[in-house]
Amino acid sequence: MSILVVGTVAFDNIETPFGKAERCLGGSATYFSVAASFFTDVDLIAVVGDDFTEKDLEIFRGRRINIDGLERVRGAKTFFWSGEYGYDLNVAKTRETQLNVFADFRPQLNEWQRHAKVLFLANIHPELQMDVLHQTERPRLVALDTMNLWIATKRDALESAFRQVDLVVINEAETRQFTAETNLVKGAHKILHLGPQTIVIKRGEYGVLMITNGAAFAVPAYPLENVFDPTGAGDTFAGGFLGYLTSRQNHDERELRRAIIFGSVLASFTVEKFSLDRLREITLDDIYERYRAFRALTHFEDFEV
Amino acid sequence: MSILVVGTVAFDNIETPFGKAERCLGGSATYFSVAASFFTDVDLIAVVGDDFTEKDLEIFRGRRINIDGLERVRGAKTFFWSGEYGYDLNVAKTRETQLNVFADFRPQLNEWQRHAKVLFLANIHPELQMDVLHQTERPRLVALDTMNLWIATKRDALESAFRQVDLVVINEAETRQFTAETNLVKGAHKILHLGPQTIVIKRGEYGVLMITNGAAFAVPAYPLENVFDPTGAGDTFAGGFLGYLTSRQNHDERELRRAIIFGSVLASFTVEKFSLDRLREITLDDIYERYRAFRALTHFEDFEV
Repeated sequence: MSILVVGTVAFDNIETPFGKAERCLGGSATYFSVAASFFTDVDLIAVVGDDFTEKDLEIFRGRRINIDGLERVRGAKTFFWSGEYGYDLNVAKTRETQLNVFADFRPQLNEWQRHAKVLFLANIHPELQMDVLHQTERPRLVALDTMNLWIATKRDALESAFRQVDLVVINEAETRQFTAETNLVKGAHKILHLGPQTIVIKRGEYGVLMITNGAAFAVPAYPLENVFDPTGAGDTFAGGFLGYLTSRQNHDERELRRAIIFGSVLASFTVEKFSLDRLREITLDDIYERYRAFRALTHFEDFEV
Repeated sequence: MSILVVGTVAFDNIETPFGKAERCLGGSATYFSVAASFFTDVDLIAVVGDDFTEKDLEIFRGRRINIDGLERVRGAKTFFWSGEYGYDLNVAKTRETQLNVFADFRPQLNEWQRHAKVLFLANIHPELQMDVLHQTERPRLVALDTMNLWIATKRDALESAFRQVDLVVINEAETRQFTAETNLVKGAHKILHLGPQTIVIKRGEYGVLMITNGAAFAVPAYPLENVFDPTGAGDTFAGGFLGYLTSRQNHDERELRRAIIFGSVLASFTVEKFSLDRLREITLDDIYERYRAFRALTHFEDFEV
């Protein structure tokens, strides 16, 4: 089984209180693919310019990532994002976004990609997300991420997209923004009411809340002494979460919860260094070890009267 | 075994986006005592004015709360707090504080109180907290809460107090304020370095993080559809946490974790109604049921390769 992802491959300028990185590798589909590839085969659909070099491609080499769907446009530049974080690392401030090659991106799926079993629509224009979905033979599981920009400017298209997917990955502030509900549980149910069976709410340093089939699952983030750069944490989470899920026979509550932990584990590595630098280093053994650390962090026993 | 608590018994005016309550019962020692009394005998040390009626005292009757230490001052008024919350219920805005009888409060412990096995110093002036501690025959477990006001105005006294207790209960923003560390884990270790073996960091709707003996334990708050009034949640948490612990033979990691859950359970009830209205209604069975709901919320299994 493999997972198909459509999203951005980008260059980022990032400044945090702990340092800065210029023109480092980024993009939602990049973080997602690398994270998911620890568990399953990944088909990447994205676009870059001819400023994206062979050396930049190395991030995908030697991993279970098929880049046949990575389009390269001559004479054009790769998507570029510049942002900064203050001491509150939960909030990114965008300095600049250059769509570049992404402005005219209209992916055409090949036969293999059309039959993907799992599809992740990373945070891009909701109409583009639906265009990709409609080219497929309805995968078994379709998940979608979004952002405040689309909630504010493409609300109808986004609501229509929510109605066509199985699972929504969204952050806490976006849930409140889309639903106009301050109470997160009520907001989650409003989104589920549109159609998805599962909503996964990302809460940054506070972890994740998943609501599915009326049951809630919550896990804190791993408490780290060194959080260096939160860029890509959400996409890495989604990659670990859906990558693990794609590798499993069934997607019941037990597997969904394990998937949430694997997503949290991967995200906890990403934030330890700039860009994908930490993801480049880790092995499956590191991932398993931190999964066990999550168990140690959260486990408690039933009481005895 | 019983637990001795010193703190405020108060009247509160509270306004939230969901309604308001005037001159309702409040105070750190009130919430703490009622929560702790579900598990153990409580000795309450506090002061009220003669505006505090027999009817107000009913909250303590029929519970395991000894109010011999509740001083009553003639011709004076009870401590009064007025505050409001916006849609972000994590942040209280104080409109007014009237110390009233509390301004001259210098509790004198009796022989029984001096031999308490567990002592909770609720959020009052750190010198007053130490005055109470020094009257005791050093309880087996001494815990302390504080607030931003004392961090800003009584820093040396507070640091001295931290050095003399076993356990600190503090909220997230206060941890950052006291330690000047944006990273919570680093901040926690700075406070532990002063002497306490355990720090319990309250994160409002995001739950609790405990660090003790180098091990971390984190639990999310219970996701509620109706959060009505967060006043007293922190003191209720401390009451459930320390009340349960006082009732147990040992205070090892396993019991500490259960205690964190019981504290979280009690706090999750408090916020469902104004003042102590919800705490008045619940039974031990309700508490046990929600403990099990916390297990269902947070449980996940080890992975299978």
